[in-house]
Amino acid sequence: MISVSRMKEYGVAFTLDREKTVWLEGDRVVMLDRRKLPEKVEYPSFRDYQEVARAIEQMVIQGAMLVGYAAGYGIALTAVKNRSLPKERLKLELQKAATRLRSTRPTGSDLFSVVDESLRVAYKAIDQGDDVGSAVADYVRNLIREEDSIAKRIGQNAATLLEDGDTVLTHCYAESALIYMFLEAEKRGKRVKAIATETRPYLQGARLTSLALKEAGVPVTLICDSMVAYCMWKGLIQKYVTAADRVALDGSIANKIGTYQNAIAAHEHNIPFYVLSYSGPDKNTPVYKDIVVEERDPEEIFYIRGVRIAPDGIGGYYPAFDIVPPKFISAIVTERGIFAPAAMKDYWDSRRT
Amino acid sequence: MISVSRMKEYGVAFTLDREKTVWLEGDRVVMLDRRKLPEKVEYPSFRDYQEVARAIEQMVIQGAMLVGYAAGYGIALTAVKNRSLPKERLKLELQKAATRLRSTRPTGSDLFSVVDESLRVAYKAIDQGDDVGSAVADYVRNLIREEDSIAKRIGQNAATLLEDGDTVLTHCYAESALIYMFLEAEKRGKRVKAIATETRPYLQGARLTSLALKEAGVPVTLICDSMVAYCMWKGLIQKYVTAADRVALDGSIANKIGTYQNAIAAHEHNIPFYVLSYSGPDKNTPVYKDIVVEERDPEEIFYIRGVRIAPDGIGGYYPAFDIVPPKFISAIVTERGIFAPAAMKDYWDSRRT
Repeated sequence: MISVSRMKEYGVAFTLDREKTVWLEGDRVVMLDRRKLPEKVEYPSFRDYQEVARAIEQMVIQGAMLVGYAAGYGIALTAVKNRSLPKERLKLELQKAATRLRSTRPTGSDLFSVVDESLRVAYKAIDQGDDVGSAVADYVRNLIREEDSIAKRIGQNAATLLEDGDTVLTHCYAESALIYMFLEAEKRGKRVKAIATETRPYLQGARLTSLALKEAGVPVTLICDSMVAYCMWKGLIQKYVTAADRVALDGSIANKIGTYQNAIAAHEHNIPFYVLSYSGPDKNTPVYKDIVVEERDPEEIFYIRGVRIAPDGIGGYYPAFDIVPPKFISAIVTERGIFAPAAMKDYWDSRRT
Repeated sequence: MISVSRMKEYGVAFTLDREKTVWLEGDRVVMLDRRKLPEKVEYPSFRDYQEVARAIEQMVIQGAMLVGYAAGYGIALTAVKNRSLPKERLKLELQKAATRLRSTRPTGSDLFSVVDESLRVAYKAIDQGDDVGSAVADYVRNLIREEDSIAKRIGQNAATLLEDGDTVLTHCYAESALIYMFLEAEKRGKRVKAIATETRPYLQGARLTSLALKEAGVPVTLICDSMVAYCMWKGLIQKYVTAADRVALDGSIANKIGTYQNAIAAHEHNIPFYVLSYSGPDKNTPVYKDIVVEERDPEEIFYIRGVRIAPDGIGGYYPAFDIVPPKFISAIVTERGIFAPAAMKDYWDSRRT
């Protein structure tokens, strides 16, 4: 287990610096292995899009946007490795890579939009005779930088919804917008604390969120996923805030399994639920029924950090996400402003606030 | 990890045979160490009431009634070890033991009723010149046997609430009445399946419930605590059934942390919640506010089966139980019949059905 100060020493500002989480380096895609945090800081590298796809499936990298970046770099890597191919054969190879990368995880929407855009950028570079690998890698790197400023803006908007003395419940790891929200609240003189759920089965809350908040100087208390409603009943929680892996145009969201359960409990206790949306609603997802909820291998829930916790000979079920209908969502916070779920489709006509 | 068949071979019918879970043997109290299941089957023994009290605090034995039995045997052990003391000094020693044992865990009600009754039995034996240790041990053993027949009756009553094809969600380990419920349903030609939550932090669902149900031939699917509401939304759950560590006269219950959260989700999805109550409402608990919810050392949630899951330098909160108000409870099932929560106080005027 490395300590927080040791994390800093390692230079792993993984919470706020996504460029250090995944990148293209020569003919490899390098990723910070999130599964190993906080015990170990490891940067495995992947030699082709098949390996990148497997890394995504095996959760080396996690989080809707980060998965998108990894897939984008997978396209760039394919271009690098096939730079000597004739144009049409290169396009075919890129299409194969795109198909494989799109098949890795069904729920988050960024994967699909980033792969599509990477392919568009690659084709344009091919047609213009530019360096294809550099063009796609530049696109992804710029996207990461742009989304960092989006995350800051989301954090600023979300901070206006918090009050001095609030304790905010969060589930899974909502990435940098969550951290910016707390930092911005502090800047505005609001003392705000956090309660993080551990977020079984991958324990992102225990391993990543608590560490990121600690790094940011936010007082954070860890609880098990089963303790949310009791903490609400006790009056320990004033707001509930998560990210979303996908936002539908009807204002429903998909996010880490457990988000829905907590939202129902929040609703019962009159606690507002705010969703941080990095990329707005997905144009290709009119209603929640269009969202495919990924179901992963149940074997993954029989183990915790490599230790078997269940007897053999039983069944298991592992949905990795759930869907929260608009009824349970108070507002969706974007870089363009704060939307009522019912007004989510207006996002595309709005400007950044 | 020992297999189910190996469990049987070991003779550890811990699910239905409570006499093999805790007993008095000479001048020791012996307990099956539930924390080690299902990996290891170990029977540590304890030499005096202080050691028994510590074993209860450290969760060697778990479950409201079983904790009561252990405390009762702790009183019996105190009598055995002090059998040569004069009557009044022995009574004083027994009082000290009772005070210490009562202080171990605040939420479950059986601990208090069994310690009180053990003391009454001991005093009577002292006054009559009987063997005090034997008298108390006999009382506890008879209680265990009597409660086994109570559990069967509860199981029979609860089985009438199930329908052919139901899948029943259960949380933590509801002990033998739950198993009898499934066996009784099967006898009546109802095919009923189970979904068990893993029940962090002690994983009783993953380690004990799933194993007990498997032993009983009930198809069981394990999920994480965060997956309950999604399974309900998907239509995978028709009934929700747990035990209770304490039932108040107002029809509210205390049970393992998470029970409340699941009950809110069940209510939202119009799924009935049935509570199995082994000992009826506690006469000394008029309303839920009289229930003390145990808060344990947060260090316990930073580890899973000995593996650290969280960084250092963060806070933690570990309430071990929660309270479910009557609004979320469809019925409380006892050996005397099935009660609406609002009618719970009628229990004491009812006969066994």
